[in-house]
Amino acid sequence: MAEDPFTLYRQLQKAFSRNIKGKENRELIGRIYEASRDRLGEGNRIELKSLVPDKSYFAFEGKYVSRAVNKALYLDDEGKGWAKFAAAMDKGDNTGGGLNPHELTRVIYSAAMAFCCYVDTIKEGDKKTPGTYFEYFIGHLFAWRLDANPTKSLQVLNLDMDTELPTDFVFQPGKGKTKFHLPIKTSTRERVIQVWAHQRVLDGVYGTGRFIGTPVILTETKTDKKKREVIEICLPAQWRLYQLHIAQLKRVYYLDLPAPYESLNKGKPTLAVREFGEFFFEAAAL
Amino acid sequence: MAEDPFTLYRQLQKAFSRNIKGKENRELIGRIYEASRDRLGEGNRIELKSLVPDKSYFAFEGKYVSRAVNKALYLDDEGKGWAKFAAAMDKGDNTGGGLNPHELTRVIYSAAMAFCCYVDTIKEGDKKTPGTYFEYFIGHLFAWRLDANPTKSLQVLNLDMDTELPTDFVFQPGKGKTKFHLPIKTSTRERVIQVWAHQRVLDGVYGTGRFIGTPVILTETKTDKKKREVIEICLPAQWRLYQLHIAQLKRVYYLDLPAPYESLNKGKPTLAVREFGEFFFEAAAL
Repeated sequence: MAEDPFTLYRQLQKAFSRNIKGKENRELIGRIYEASRDRLGEGNRIELKSLVPDKSYFAFEGKYVSRAVNKALYLDDEGKGWAKFAAAMDKGDNTGGGLNPHELTRVIYSAAMAFCCYVDTIKEGDKKTPGTYFEYFIGHLFAWRLDANPTKSLQVLNLDMDTELPTDFVFQPGKGKTKFHLPIKTSTRERVIQVWAHQRVLDGVYGTGRFIGTPVILTETKTDKKKREVIEICLPAQWRLYQLHIAQLKRVYYLDLPAPYESLNKGKPTLAVREFGEFFFEAAAL
Repeated sequence: MAEDPFTLYRQLQKAFSRNIKGKENRELIGRIYEASRDRLGEGNRIELKSLVPDKSYFAFEGKYVSRAVNKALYLDDEGKGWAKFAAAMDKGDNTGGGLNPHELTRVIYSAAMAFCCYVDTIKEGDKKTPGTYFEYFIGHLFAWRLDANPTKSLQVLNLDMDTELPTDFVFQPGKGKTKFHLPIKTSTRERVIQVWAHQRVLDGVYGTGRFIGTPVILTETKTDKKKREVIEICLPAQWRLYQLHIAQLKRVYYLDLPAPYESLNKGKPTLAVREFGEFFFEAAAL
């Protein structure tokens, strides 16, 4: 019997902050992925009816039915893709060990989804555990790529104010290097406005462009469990207004990129929405 | 046996949009309040341990334990306060029928809480019904006071963009009259930044000061149901940063006003946080 994903998750919770970019986190993530795959293998896969054009989805079935999994992204490769990527990371290889951005996106999507789905199948309505795990996972990858550990708050010194501002992950890799503001969400829907608002506060407090905003989002799917139908909830027109009137995000990264947001790359004002795999190749240029 | 609060609630759902400021909504709200009081009367009240300085709380117990109810605000007057206020509203009397702002706050708090608590006691984890009800309730009162019905979206015409912006309630009472932006929440916590962000979008699209932002919030309490302890979650330092860097809110109204936010009325930059009862007296001056 393989390890228990929850036991490993609790180990990650304890270990995570010690060295966010460190190898110990990466190894735990790899073991959680393996343990989750192993458990999910015991259950069935259910076909879902996709109402999203050009995408098909399935769900894992355990005690409960999991979230929707994108068939074209989820790898059934016994973790080989992850092993390749992790080995490249161990060597400090920024090119993903020969994987291209889309392949890298699939590897990361699969590793993130395996644990999220495992939690879905055994704990009904637990959104917190998958959400927190996804934060750890992406936080580690980002920190590894920037070779810098993030913080979750910043000091505000402004005339007679001296206060601590809680933030999403913020990275300050050092003088002359780009600082990043990294919100991480499993999905956003109408709550996405928070991401722009936090960027606005950082711009206001530290100066526009001081931190570049690069949220990472897993997916925008929503599953009707009774009808077994999958939809994507997207608000591209609002995103344009937020980008015009609240703040500028440099990139929005997705693991399962919705077509309505991909189209924001064309048209004006442009908003750069990319598959997360791209980040590892373009990070130095941001 | 009195009426079923849920049956009445569904009637309100159907009727609400027809004439938001209208008497039909007010009457349904009154009947929902009465029906909820009646049902709650059948259960016990449980003492809660308040960790909020100078406030004490109890909860209603039915099948489940309700949210925390502020003892000093909740009226056991068999609906007499509401009857007085409703009668004044019927006559178009803006002074609350002789109630002062604090008394009015207590009346509105009690009427809102009765239904919310009733739902809590019979449906575990249902936050949507109380939240929507509170939106109807406050939306009606606000609309009555402004003598104008709100909408929930606005047209955006900006060069080559022509799109519909979904909003919280927005009121346009007519030429020369103040336009209002009214977000309504049972509690906000860290999600409150959305209120400032939406205000920022309105300021950006229509011009700063075109709509004044006046959110109405029920309470910021959080109850640990196992320990039966009540806390208030307040972030006054962040509110100052939001007011400085995102947008300006004209007022923040509370039914159960937290002391840490009340203190924002003093100190600089000032943020005007008031009991909601004040609104009925100051509306014309905003």
